[in-house]
Amino acid sequence: MSSTDGLAQVLAPVEEGMTRMHDVLVTQVREGSPAVRDMTAHLGRFRGKQLRAALVLLVGDATGNSTDEHATIAAIVELIHLATLVHDDILDGAEVRRRLACVNQRWNNQVAVLLGDFLYARAFALSTELSSRLCSRVLAETTRRICVGEIEQSARRYDFEMPQARYEEIAGAKTAELYAAACELGARYPGGHEESGTLMHAFGWEIGLAFQIVDDCLDLVATQEELGKTVGTDVEDGKVSLPVLYVYAHANERLRARIRDVFTLPELENRARILREECDLAPGVEYALARAGALVERAMKRIHGLPASPARTALSGLGDFVLARRY
Amino acid sequence: MSSTDGLAQVLAPVEEGMTRMHDVLVTQVREGSPAVRDMTAHLGRFRGKQLRAALVLLVGDATGNSTDEHATIAAIVELIHLATLVHDDILDGAEVRRRLACVNQRWNNQVAVLLGDFLYARAFALSTELSSRLCSRVLAETTRRICVGEIEQSARRYDFEMPQARYEEIAGAKTAELYAAACELGARYPGGHEESGTLMHAFGWEIGLAFQIVDDCLDLVATQEELGKTVGTDVEDGKVSLPVLYVYAHANERLRARIRDVFTLPELENRARILREECDLAPGVEYALARAGALVERAMKRIHGLPASPARTALSGLGDFVLARRY
Repeated sequence: MSSTDGLAQVLAPVEEGMTRMHDVLVTQVREGSPAVRDMTAHLGRFRGKQLRAALVLLVGDATGNSTDEHATIAAIVELIHLATLVHDDILDGAEVRRRLACVNQRWNNQVAVLLGDFLYARAFALSTELSSRLCSRVLAETTRRICVGEIEQSARRYDFEMPQARYEEIAGAKTAELYAAACELGARYPGGHEESGTLMHAFGWEIGLAFQIVDDCLDLVATQEELGKTVGTDVEDGKVSLPVLYVYAHANERLRARIRDVFTLPELENRARILREECDLAPGVEYALARAGALVERAMKRIHGLPASPARTALSGLGDFVLARRY
Repeated sequence: MSSTDGLAQVLAPVEEGMTRMHDVLVTQVREGSPAVRDMTAHLGRFRGKQLRAALVLLVGDATGNSTDEHATIAAIVELIHLATLVHDDILDGAEVRRRLACVNQRWNNQVAVLLGDFLYARAFALSTELSSRLCSRVLAETTRRICVGEIEQSARRYDFEMPQARYEEIAGAKTAELYAAACELGARYPGGHEESGTLMHAFGWEIGLAFQIVDDCLDLVATQEELGKTVGTDVEDGKVSLPVLYVYAHANERLRARIRDVFTLPELENRARILREECDLAPGVEYALARAGALVERAMKRIHGLPASPARTALSGLGDFVLARRY
């Protein structure tokens, strides 16, 4: 089974909800102003797997907590995810100079800032129209934690001796927080069900962290063709991910110095490829994927007690998909 | 009376509330993570007159609608204002190259994006803890409109034939929206008082638009010493403000071509100074300030019916301050 089929199977039980989610998303992004319409046309670049939105719906179904508002919550989660992606695309002065060739002329930093802000504002405005405040509360706090994680990540660039726990905190804040919030809202919205909310929050956190670890491995070793997006960006941006931390920790001083050089020497082209050619990254990738596997396994145990349902089966399939995906 | 004294007089009736507002602000911006603390230390650069926060409190008092939560709302409004300022500071690729000398080494675009997002998230998270949802609703919608205004402004760069109404829509969305929301929340929060809310929204819009028009005049003709911040940025960034629109509309074709050149020719240094030296901007500035005066006058009529109080007097003083300010 290819990983595309795997994703289709995961999404099948919530197909109708995902269609409604998509309708809400399109309506929210539509705006009278031609300049804004021009800008939201760029959003196609960021159209992804919409796993976070699917989790709201799947967890709602699997915990017997679906409401008419779940599709809207799924759209709000997706809007916040889109906003973070758009803002991630903003380059600092050094990167602008370094990557100028890749920067789309029409897609400048200011556009990205404004479009991201617009998406955040849309998401929060929509959440304030829901019957319960839980969604606004959970997502405002989640967004704050995502920002703190991104700020920490930026401060930890070129830190080759970061403990694994710190890497996981940062990767977790960046990705797992929104997975966890999506699952928590699926299980808890509009209120009550605290225990189920806590359980599914933990499930989402583990799946999200596993997803990010796999993402970091793919960015390091996949090709642009396989992944359908630019690879090697972590190495370019000085982000030291789990496989590199592992290889660095087990390297002799000569190799460590070379790894630092590949990350930091000015004017190097295609740093990730140089790293792959000059270091054996396989043990680091293997270690990281094993960690992702353990996280998924722990997540699966959490949903074991839920009543059997197509949604619960899909959540199990999501674990396999996260580990097997090549895009 | 200097305009500094004028500001102190405006703020006097809400001094205690402003102290509480400031305490909330400081608490919200404080964060455990050292990287975030490092970053929020930059916020000093953006410390301003806090007029928006003051409006929440003054309008609350002047309309007899003060609550214990008004100081928190004032802090939320100020956090959103800070977030917009921080994001306004983000430069696109061309500007990074053009202004590189002025860009603080530690203050890169990514820092600005993340810090602004953090401030927005803090503001929304805090608003979800209030007893009424009105603040979240009004400010999420306001933030969306601010973004749309900024996007429109970016699309209208170098548009010398923009109608005045369009300029006012953009300047209004950029600045007057948050003034209007601050006044509306002051008059309406936690709910009810729709009529008073509508009246004070209109008051805030007019004062805010007048403020922005004066700001645009100062950016064009004040010196850096007078203003205490970089001037001429609108001309550098291709933003055509009301005084320039007026001068352009009344210029002959030769002068028009020269104005376009000063805005657009590559490699020009200090475009605003060249513009001042080569064009008589005085009629444009005079026209714009008259428009600001008319807006303030209209705003003053709106609060005429409020019962006499120190807060109402301060709101009248705010109109004078907006027109007289030189910083």
